[in-house]
Amino acid sequence: MRLHLDKVNQRPSAWPSLPWPSTAPIFTRRAVEIELINTGTELLLGRVLNTHQQWLGQRFADGGYTISRQVTVPDTGPAIRDAVKAALGRAGLVITTGGLGPTSDDITRELIADLLAKSLRRDDTIADHIERFFARRNRPMPRTVLVQAHVPEGAVVFPNENGTAPGLAIELSPNPFRDSGGPAWLLMLPGPPRELRPMVDDQVLPFIKKSLPLKQEFHCRTLRSLGVGESMVEDMLLDQLKPLMDLGLDLGFCARTGQVDIRLCGYGSEMPQLIADAESIIRVAIDKQIYGIDDQSIAEVVVERLIAAGETLAVAESCTGGFLGHHITNVPGASAIFAGGVLTYSNAMKQKLLGVSESTLAEHGAVSKSVAIEMVEGALTVSGADHALSVTGIAGPGGGTPDKPVGTVWLGVASRGGRPLAIRKFHPYDRETFKHATVHQALELLRRRLQKTG
Amino acid sequence: MRLHLDKVNQRPSAWPSLPWPSTAPIFTRRAVEIELINTGTELLLGRVLNTHQQWLGQRFADGGYTISRQVTVPDTGPAIRDAVKAALGRAGLVITTGGLGPTSDDITRELIADLLAKSLRRDDTIADHIERFFARRNRPMPRTVLVQAHVPEGAVVFPNENGTAPGLAIELSPNPFRDSGGPAWLLMLPGPPRELRPMVDDQVLPFIKKSLPLKQEFHCRTLRSLGVGESMVEDMLLDQLKPLMDLGLDLGFCARTGQVDIRLCGYGSEMPQLIADAESIIRVAIDKQIYGIDDQSIAEVVVERLIAAGETLAVAESCTGGFLGHHITNVPGASAIFAGGVLTYSNAMKQKLLGVSESTLAEHGAVSKSVAIEMVEGALTVSGADHALSVTGIAGPGGGTPDKPVGTVWLGVASRGGRPLAIRKFHPYDRETFKHATVHQALELLRRRLQKTG
Repeated sequence: MRLHLDKVNQRPSAWPSLPWPSTAPIFTRRAVEIELINTGTELLLGRVLNTHQQWLGQRFADGGYTISRQVTVPDTGPAIRDAVKAALGRAGLVITTGGLGPTSDDITRELIADLLAKSLRRDDTIADHIERFFARRNRPMPRTVLVQAHVPEGAVVFPNENGTAPGLAIELSPNPFRDSGGPAWLLMLPGPPRELRPMVDDQVLPFIKKSLPLKQEFHCRTLRSLGVGESMVEDMLLDQLKPLMDLGLDLGFCARTGQVDIRLCGYGSEMPQLIADAESIIRVAIDKQIYGIDDQSIAEVVVERLIAAGETLAVAESCTGGFLGHHITNVPGASAIFAGGVLTYSNAMKQKLLGVSESTLAEHGAVSKSVAIEMVEGALTVSGADHALSVTGIAGPGGGTPDKPVGTVWLGVASRGGRPLAIRKFHPYDRETFKHATVHQALELLRRRLQKTG
Repeated sequence: MRLHLDKVNQRPSAWPSLPWPSTAPIFTRRAVEIELINTGTELLLGRVLNTHQQWLGQRFADGGYTISRQVTVPDTGPAIRDAVKAALGRAGLVITTGGLGPTSDDITRELIADLLAKSLRRDDTIADHIERFFARRNRPMPRTVLVQAHVPEGAVVFPNENGTAPGLAIELSPNPFRDSGGPAWLLMLPGPPRELRPMVDDQVLPFIKKSLPLKQEFHCRTLRSLGVGESMVEDMLLDQLKPLMDLGLDLGFCARTGQVDIRLCGYGSEMPQLIADAESIIRVAIDKQIYGIDDQSIAEVVVERLIAAGETLAVAESCTGGFLGHHITNVPGASAIFAGGVLTYSNAMKQKLLGVSESTLAEHGAVSKSVAIEMVEGALTVSGADHALSVTGIAGPGGGTPDKPVGTVWLGVASRGGRPLAIRKFHPYDRETFKHATVHQALELLRRRLQKTG
């Protein structure tokens, strides 16, 4: 097994060496070698963030398929051709993204048809779909878009519900680019995420599961925790989980500021039991800190719990400036539970909108337990909500003092008929990381309160 | 030249073919072929978003160096070794990220030293730095971290101001992996962005400019526009800019929802004049829509302008739920101009905190011009700020009606002593894209008002 530590976000600068071999079962026991090719000059010029790698990587990994290599090449013929040939020389499944549109730099379909010596034929069903797509939007249809109805001979077509270019799959059997000649699938997917993502979930993954079945059934469960350090998680859990890992359980940790995801995966019919055993061990140690499973965000968990309880929430934000409200309102259906809130960036607004007293501000300063409490009580009163959260802190880079350095933050929680509570946290990071960590902790503070009373 | 269209975000589903050759001067006239290798199993499993590609891609491109290929490989010896060998076979500059830390899966430094047959020696300056790094933080130092003080013979060392592992550069002259034997540089950078980014800006880019100088001086300027479609930008500008492009100006467009970046770049001493000429042509056509240059965000522009004027701003947000306040408070120094705001998600809060009248809500509904106006006037009154912005709309997926479909939003702006104004926009996208587009337009609404009165 290997530990999948987050190298990118807020990793501690020192980390003890771990005595595990570096080849995980998820790599050695997988069904097929998979390579991802992202095409797009704008990706290499840094004009656009490549989100395909993470999204596809996670979707595939959670289904038991591991992407072993990802490459980005510009929209030029030789670059795409070389990348596809090299990938087909190694992998049984090669996926390209982008280059299927109707513009002059969309050349993936034509290039690949040419590389595989397949002729392109017009598919009338796709052409009809494209014409209807424009008609429904009352937009004139440029003739050039119909190039997207051309399909390499023998290709499987994945209709595009959210755009015009369909996805395409071609089987190479034998695969002329591999010495062994073993068969391979080449999949071409459209570039825009809102077209690619539903296509992958609804059509591509089921297709892959059928065409390239796993040798053994695959099971995966991710436990998401907040408020416990990754080294603590490891120290507490590794020894106890080792026997299960020896039986094939793949254990992965991924840490971001204050958050640790614990991923339990493996192949075989015995895996559901091993995962359940591992989860029991973990919950004995840190059940209180586990806020959700798999893809659940802390905001989703809190919003769902409030919806279920028929209760409402208000916020009073200072240093987070609206980021807490943003997280809550990102959850569809939040309007049923979110009363609203106030952004009291100035002391004057804290007094006027929340009734924080001038003497409390003068005596303790805006970043203090007393002000966090008066803010959260004020939010409860002004909103009429059942629960409220407050945040007051110093995001930096300016504003720190020896007593209250940049990164200091007080979080308050209050509920109708209960005693308010405030806790102090310290996030000496850049402004955005500070906001992220603070918002997650505020939501976690409420989640634990709801858990206690629920 | 080629058009760098955004394939990923909100690209229109149809796009006219453009009659430009597909090889840009930025690719054919560059000084050196550059390849980027991101190491990290967690990147391929999708547990972490790879932001290095975009950040480095943009930093390098803006300096006249274009990354021609990027690859992600897992933290396994064979994968890293193969990727480095293949890249050195093609490129004059190869950059790796990650794998320089002290844990068992940090193997980049040892692997590369082995591949290049360089011995590792302990660098006492680095060892001292690491010891001081832990001492300053009052943290015990595990012995294993000192592995980071080991440096391949002859390597250039880039001290790490924000962590422990230094960056390293090794010159291969001749380069044994290239048939031509032409020299190459191999750079190893640490994985965490807050360590890598300052190292690149302060040390690596100056080093590259000295070691791999451009054949000709490079100039680049990006004009950022809001509120004009990319097809409109092209239609208006391409014909007029064509003569400058024939002289070597590289013109790139990158579009996101409602935003178009226009990038003017090129090599040679005549380029500042060509870029200035191009900018004049563009400003004649769309000066009003250009909100900033290069890396400026619309929030930065607005905050800076308010700071310069000594004026303050308040917000009244409904459907954006705090995202507008979040953007404003992301700008360091925003506390000088941001009075705060209210998140009036419910009608009751709109009435209570902003004084929106019950009859207006009943007659026009919450998503209406009248309510946007009453909200922005209420925000001005309650905050005492000089300016206010209001947002009320339907983010979806629920809540739409035939009259006011999902995506409908009203934006209001008001200033002390001036008449309030509200405009209607329509963003029929997913929830987060809706919020993004809405927040940018609200800030743009204020920017134009400040420009007029400024």
